[in-house]
Amino acid sequence: MGYKVKAENLKDLCFRLLKKAGASEYDARVTADSLVSADLYGVETHGVSRMATYIKRIKEGGVSVTGGFEIIKQYPGAALCDGGGALGQPTGVKAMELAMDKARSAGAYTVFVRNSSHYGMAAYYTRMAAEKGFIGISSTNAPSALPPFGSHEAYLGPNPLSIALPYKEGFPVCLDMSPGVIPRGRLMLAIQKGESIPEGWALDRQGNPTTDPQKAWDGCILPMGGPKGSGLALALDGICGVLAGACFGSHIGTLFGGFSQRQNVGHVFTAIDPCLFREKGEFERDMQQMAMEIKSLEKNPGTDEIYLPGELEYLKMQRGLKEGLELSESSHKALKELSQELEEEFNI
Amino acid sequence: MGYKVKAENLKDLCFRLLKKAGASEYDARVTADSLVSADLYGVETHGVSRMATYIKRIKEGGVSVTGGFEIIKQYPGAALCDGGGALGQPTGVKAMELAMDKARSAGAYTVFVRNSSHYGMAAYYTRMAAEKGFIGISSTNAPSALPPFGSHEAYLGPNPLSIALPYKEGFPVCLDMSPGVIPRGRLMLAIQKGESIPEGWALDRQGNPTTDPQKAWDGCILPMGGPKGSGLALALDGICGVLAGACFGSHIGTLFGGFSQRQNVGHVFTAIDPCLFREKGEFERDMQQMAMEIKSLEKNPGTDEIYLPGELEYLKMQRGLKEGLELSESSHKALKELSQELEEEFNI
Repeated sequence: MGYKVKAENLKDLCFRLLKKAGASEYDARVTADSLVSADLYGVETHGVSRMATYIKRIKEGGVSVTGGFEIIKQYPGAALCDGGGALGQPTGVKAMELAMDKARSAGAYTVFVRNSSHYGMAAYYTRMAAEKGFIGISSTNAPSALPPFGSHEAYLGPNPLSIALPYKEGFPVCLDMSPGVIPRGRLMLAIQKGESIPEGWALDRQGNPTTDPQKAWDGCILPMGGPKGSGLALALDGICGVLAGACFGSHIGTLFGGFSQRQNVGHVFTAIDPCLFREKGEFERDMQQMAMEIKSLEKNPGTDEIYLPGELEYLKMQRGLKEGLELSESSHKALKELSQELEEEFNI
Repeated sequence: MGYKVKAENLKDLCFRLLKKAGASEYDARVTADSLVSADLYGVETHGVSRMATYIKRIKEGGVSVTGGFEIIKQYPGAALCDGGGALGQPTGVKAMELAMDKARSAGAYTVFVRNSSHYGMAAYYTRMAAEKGFIGISSTNAPSALPPFGSHEAYLGPNPLSIALPYKEGFPVCLDMSPGVIPRGRLMLAIQKGESIPEGWALDRQGNPTTDPQKAWDGCILPMGGPKGSGLALALDGICGVLAGACFGSHIGTLFGGFSQRQNVGHVFTAIDPCLFREKGEFERDMQQMAMEIKSLEKNPGTDEIYLPGELEYLKMQRGLKEGLELSESSHKALKELSQELEEEFNI
């Protein structure tokens, strides 16, 4: 069982803890908002369960609180930025804001980022763009978790692909998919909760199927669709890692260890402004038509409603904002300990 | 059993047939090259097996041989083009060439295309870009074949995602994945060959699993990874169809019927020039390192070699160019009939 907390209080607590640990006001605010949004969205693996790790990384120097976001190269259709080793969330927001700002006149604009850290939920950035009327696309590379097709050695990250498209106010269609059968954070959650995992999710270090999340953590998650999942992870690493000049493959620093070392993660953010290609309102109108047509298709037996990508998450978020957020016992405990350690009021 | 034919002869035959049917010299050459490349690549479903359909569409007016490629809107980072209802292949090549040309100074450039036709294999365009040193990305929408998650009504197209990255001369890393468990063309091939299909590939029109490719053709292919596959198809349709102002969802004209009707398919092509973000040669060097590291990982039992995305296809292509191409009996027969009908020498 968990605790019911108010999203605003949780956000305030995370903000204060990150700030006390040394993050700037801006960095602390954006990171707290991203983490709590992930929890509201139902993606606990990218939520406040990461707070203790983030703060440890700040304290030990793996995440910089002084390194600033810098534009290294800027062209008419794309830019390369350096994250300065800061928290991934403020870096990601700045990069997507740059992409949106430029896309208003460029039509489409892509920002590559090197020298960054774990940036949380990809959908946070693409939804941000879609809520402002843009098509938002984002990916990041991540520490090794997936084996390339034909191997059982985790080399590739579970590099996500998120695409969000505006369709009605406050509720963009939003894909956010991992190339793995499950996100790696799901294993950490199972470890924290002491649960076993279903077969078909992961292999142990020797390449045998396992239902033990710790053995899976030491081994690898299976890619979705065989060569498709690992091919997608590889291609995204070529863009986020190799093109951006960040680390790639097994060279990316782990999040849950080497707390004094930079991860040097790479990201990509693209914004497309529909107003420059369709007449005003036409894009949203057609997306609305597509959405409505899909929702009115014949349902499978046992299916009450056909949900669009991101719709269930949006509904969950609305519910969480109204009724409060379910926080796991382990996250509650970790935040309490952090509050004591950093001498901040524990008000959730 | 099939026929062994020389790729050059097959290309020449397709070129002459398309030209005789009314296509311009350029359109006929590009389309013949794309179709034979798909066969060489092992993607028969996007190869010369489509010739009879293409020619029927030209003859009945569904594909225009006079409509030209037109740039409708042009911005610093993206352009919108109209395909003029012409064959998808020459349209796609012109669009990717525009994207590459612009990316040399823009860093990244995206071309959206509306009012086009079936464009064959997505990897044809991304490989083209990667062979010239660019990262190439492409997608297209396509007639309904996939059910959105929760339904068994085919509404979404099996809209592919292809990403190619240069790594060594003549052999780019190239992902080309359908969001369906299989490409829809695979069903047509099974129908032509009179083969049954494995369970888990498709549902019939009532939503029941089927191994009959004709029933699957009338029903739907299952998306990969459940909500991931259908979410990806939906997001890509939002870009290729809705943003470009082409048809979307179930409104896209079918390829194998309505031969006098425009399909109004939409595509997207992105080129990224690595030279503008990394020092000369660094990108290819790091991609080479990643590739070599992956190929030297521990292999699964029964796996002789770990292949990169597009590697097996590249090897098959090299073999086909040297030893000739295996052509199915049905494709051979169709080409012979077309040759008689169009009074062209049948020289394969």
